[in-house]
Amino acid sequence: MHDYVTRLHSAIRHKATPALVGLDPREDSLPEEIRQAAANRPGNRLERLAWAYETFCRGVIDAVAPIIPAVKPQVAFFEDAGPPGIAALQSIIRYARTRGLIVIADAKRGDIGTTAHAYANAWLAGEDPDASPFAADALTVNPYLGPDTLLPFVEIARARGAGLYVLVRTSNPQSGVFQQLTTDNGQPVHAHVAREVQSLAQESQNESGYGCVGAVVGATYPAELALLRKQLSSSPLLVPGYGAQGGTAADVAAAFDASGLGALVNSSRNVIFGYRREAYRELAAKEGWQASIEAAAREFIEDLRAHTPAGVLTCNE
Amino acid sequence: MHDYVTRLHSAIRHKATPALVGLDPREDSLPEEIRQAAANRPGNRLERLAWAYETFCRGVIDAVAPIIPAVKPQVAFFEDAGPPGIAALQSIIRYARTRGLIVIADAKRGDIGTTAHAYANAWLAGEDPDASPFAADALTVNPYLGPDTLLPFVEIARARGAGLYVLVRTSNPQSGVFQQLTTDNGQPVHAHVAREVQSLAQESQNESGYGCVGAVVGATYPAELALLRKQLSSSPLLVPGYGAQGGTAADVAAAFDASGLGALVNSSRNVIFGYRREAYRELAAKEGWQASIEAAAREFIEDLRAHTPAGVLTCNE
Repeated sequence: MHDYVTRLHSAIRHKATPALVGLDPREDSLPEEIRQAAANRPGNRLERLAWAYETFCRGVIDAVAPIIPAVKPQVAFFEDAGPPGIAALQSIIRYARTRGLIVIADAKRGDIGTTAHAYANAWLAGEDPDASPFAADALTVNPYLGPDTLLPFVEIARARGAGLYVLVRTSNPQSGVFQQLTTDNGQPVHAHVAREVQSLAQESQNESGYGCVGAVVGATYPAELALLRKQLSSSPLLVPGYGAQGGTAADVAAAFDASGLGALVNSSRNVIFGYRREAYRELAAKEGWQASIEAAAREFIEDLRAHTPAGVLTCNE
Repeated sequence: MHDYVTRLHSAIRHKATPALVGLDPREDSLPEEIRQAAANRPGNRLERLAWAYETFCRGVIDAVAPIIPAVKPQVAFFEDAGPPGIAALQSIIRYARTRGLIVIADAKRGDIGTTAHAYANAWLAGEDPDASPFAADALTVNPYLGPDTLLPFVEIARARGAGLYVLVRTSNPQSGVFQQLTTDNGQPVHAHVAREVQSLAQESQNESGYGCVGAVVGATYPAELALLRKQLSSSPLLVPGYGAQGGTAADVAAAFDASGLGALVNSSRNVIFGYRREAYRELAAKEGWQASIEAAAREFIEDLRAHTPAGVLTCNE
């Protein structure tokens, strides 16, 4: 079996970029042709919406699969389309994997004991897509309930060659209100979470120095990102907050090690709704919405390449 | 529109108990007759499992609906049965509501901005079951990402007469590792979360003095439960950890106000798998597994009545 980091690094090196594209379908932002086609389909509202999400996400996957290593479906939008949305999500994850993409399910799950085990079993397929209903390579998880609640996820991740990204320091405006509280050893709360994550990552690290337990650290707090990269030396990072949320490529530079590995940087809206951006509207009108998504993804890749150590990732293995 | 607390209190008074039954189906613990019937059904493994979960949960609901006010489906177990499991969950929630039960979806969701809004929209139906795909009266949410990430949930809860239970102090063994860290004002992390929750609850409180933003506080830390009851004076509590996790009725007594309101106490395994307990095996063999569940639920209700202020809830309104 190949562990998560081996598969992740292989994908990153093969595409020569750490660009991660978020699959966040939103009804109001879908291409007009998909919205119209959905409106003319049989079924109830949620069935039509789920069809639109699936059609859109397959189109995004087709546009970006040749150039990026990984996608991150945001589970909330699919849940919001009810059971048909969840079926669409399952189908999209499997499709992305057949296109050679690493799939990180952004579900931010977390619970205790056997309940955590059920979530892990539901989402984490690891190397074999048939090992779990939702077939993800990796999953985002929330640590608030405590380190014991991370262990069932770690156990299944290690057994299946899957990965985890534990929320450490998130990208939203008030993320510091609890995560940044100073504790009696002088460190913020998120540093305690990071210590647990690093310890779990270290236990599972392979010859690359990274383990299967990663961390979510926002691009919107670059100073902390640099500190956390050091503290989380065995942990692959997932960095949200680039682009629409305000983080720049320079802000995320500290997330990488000298060889350009160690992190994936996520962009969602700016890529998948590229056809809505002034810069790509003409392209979308001429060559279709998928062409604008590919162009926006290439811009994202080039921006990372120009401003981060990920620029050293130049060989297609 | 009736707000969540009005509907919750009406249900608690009507059944004269704050007993909440958790719907945590587990494949290995289902009644033998359901497992056999499932094995003989058409469909793939997950479809059969989802059928078994739905059949079992409907049976549990039928057994307890006449005597308890609320149920709490644990979403993880349904996710673990894939899309058919999610469809079963949707059906179970709607069925429980037709039986007059308040339904708290135990999903522990949490995310930022419009993503949090999507989760809230997916789960929180409030008074009108048709207002959201999953039709729950209330939802458990995780606060780690920050207060701004709670607001989309609060907004939808208030608009629809739905409720929230924010994780404050959970019942698992290592819940204190992050929740109990001492911060520089001398208070633990969970007290900061509790302050935000109390503030949100107060903004939405009705004439009963309670608002729609509740808190999850475990029965396994009774001293903190008593302190948090005071700090969270406007917040309905959801108290897990009674029974199988070691909390007693005496431990949860402090969760209630003088009139026996202010909290729901959850029991899952001890009730829904009553037929597996020594005390009820004979009853289950003679009168069926549902009779044993009803008996176990009655024992739970009586235990709360004998040892807590919830004993004053004696009138069926």
